[in-house]
Amino acid sequence: MVKQERAIRTRKAILAAAAKIFEERGYRAATISEILSAAGVTKGALYFHFSSKEELAQGILHEQDQWLPIPDRACKIQQIADTVLLHAYRLQHDPLVRAGVRLSLDQQAEEVDRRGPFTHWGDIIGDLLAKAQAQGEVLPHVSTPETADVLVGAFAGVQAMSQIMSDYQDLLARVSALLRHLLPSTVLPSVLAAVDITPGRAGIIATELRPSPENTANGRPTVRAD
Amino acid sequence: MVKQERAIRTRKAILAAAAKIFEERGYRAATISEILSAAGVTKGALYFHFSSKEELAQGILHEQDQWLPIPDRACKIQQIADTVLLHAYRLQHDPLVRAGVRLSLDQQAEEVDRRGPFTHWGDIIGDLLAKAQAQGEVLPHVSTPETADVLVGAFAGVQAMSQIMSDYQDLLARVSALLRHLLPSTVLPSVLAAVDITPGRAGIIATELRPSPENTANGRPTVRAD
Repeated sequence: MVKQERAIRTRKAILAAAAKIFEERGYRAATISEILSAAGVTKGALYFHFSSKEELAQGILHEQDQWLPIPDRACKIQQIADTVLLHAYRLQHDPLVRAGVRLSLDQQAEEVDRRGPFTHWGDIIGDLLAKAQAQGEVLPHVSTPETADVLVGAFAGVQAMSQIMSDYQDLLARVSALLRHLLPSTVLPSVLAAVDITPGRAGIIATELRPSPENTANGRPTVRAD
Repeated sequence: MVKQERAIRTRKAILAAAAKIFEERGYRAATISEILSAAGVTKGALYFHFSSKEELAQGILHEQDQWLPIPDRACKIQQIADTVLLHAYRLQHDPLVRAGVRLSLDQQAEEVDRRGPFTHWGDIIGDLLAKAQAQGEVLPHVSTPETADVLVGAFAGVQAMSQIMSDYQDLLARVSALLRHLLPSTVLPSVLAAVDITPGRAGIIATELRPSPENTANGRPTVRAD
């Protein structure tokens, strides 16, 4: 058990170092030896967890997907808004999530499967939208996969714009505005009236889901910069 | 006059070469000498037009902004839709526009002012939205700069997703879906009913605006890949 915890900690340290180096140097220019010295682990330890630079990138992209799942909400549209707002909050606070999003937009990361995160997020939002549709929260004409794709694509751009314009300072305001602009074409007005899509909602969810010490050892940790 | 035409042609060839090299190598890794040999011009000619790699990048970003202006439409929302759809069409067909959008999302292009294109597009859309508002096409609560920012940010993400998922094959469908999802929260239903935001609209506008031989020498050419 102690051994397993140490392995998780080492894996975490390696991913955090890779995230840092990819961000500084770009994926293509980054080298394993730079990542090694940033992580402060042995070559053997790194190759035990990841056999190549590409696997490191996939590890980061995968980590981005390990969103702390939002507890089931009675209103599925609220659950979608919470999922999106929490992802924005994690982008502001978790360097590993940030690195994942940047990697998936990195033109030079050619051998990395950058479709994965888009498909994965599309599925998550699409499934929640289908549930919202089943319980009558959605307007009749809506094609849930199409709406999910629009939301995922639009989010990717809004976060990039926020990073460029304000280094993510205005991210929650921009994501809240995006939801205010997108949801009325998809959701019943009576449902809209009852959902909270304000920027402040993100912090509330993050507090609700803050990992207990127990959670941090279960392989789905919230990684922070050291 | 002939001399001026030649200078414009040389500038165009240099920008096209820079666009190609930035796309292949990423901004940071690209070198002036690679751009020189791709452009097939002398060092003197290149430095006559651009004094640094950064200036080449700014030239490409600027070119992206040189959208062929959409002729005034009676309906300003149609003019916005046409502007957005034409930009999508140019992304599919003009390597220089593509390079500009990629540069503005390139994490490694640190010394390049990547805010410029976002601000510029935000102003263009914001001005058109303000005109739409003045002639009563827009819902009462709308804040035109905020809506413009949402549209510009969302477009940036939708184009990136389209490039990653289909190498721009599905771009017009995705942009049309984005407009269908965004406009209902902004535009009066009676106006919405009269605007064309179908994917096919893009080709119609492009044909309408196709530069005549006269236009191609006036410094706002449509550059194509050779």
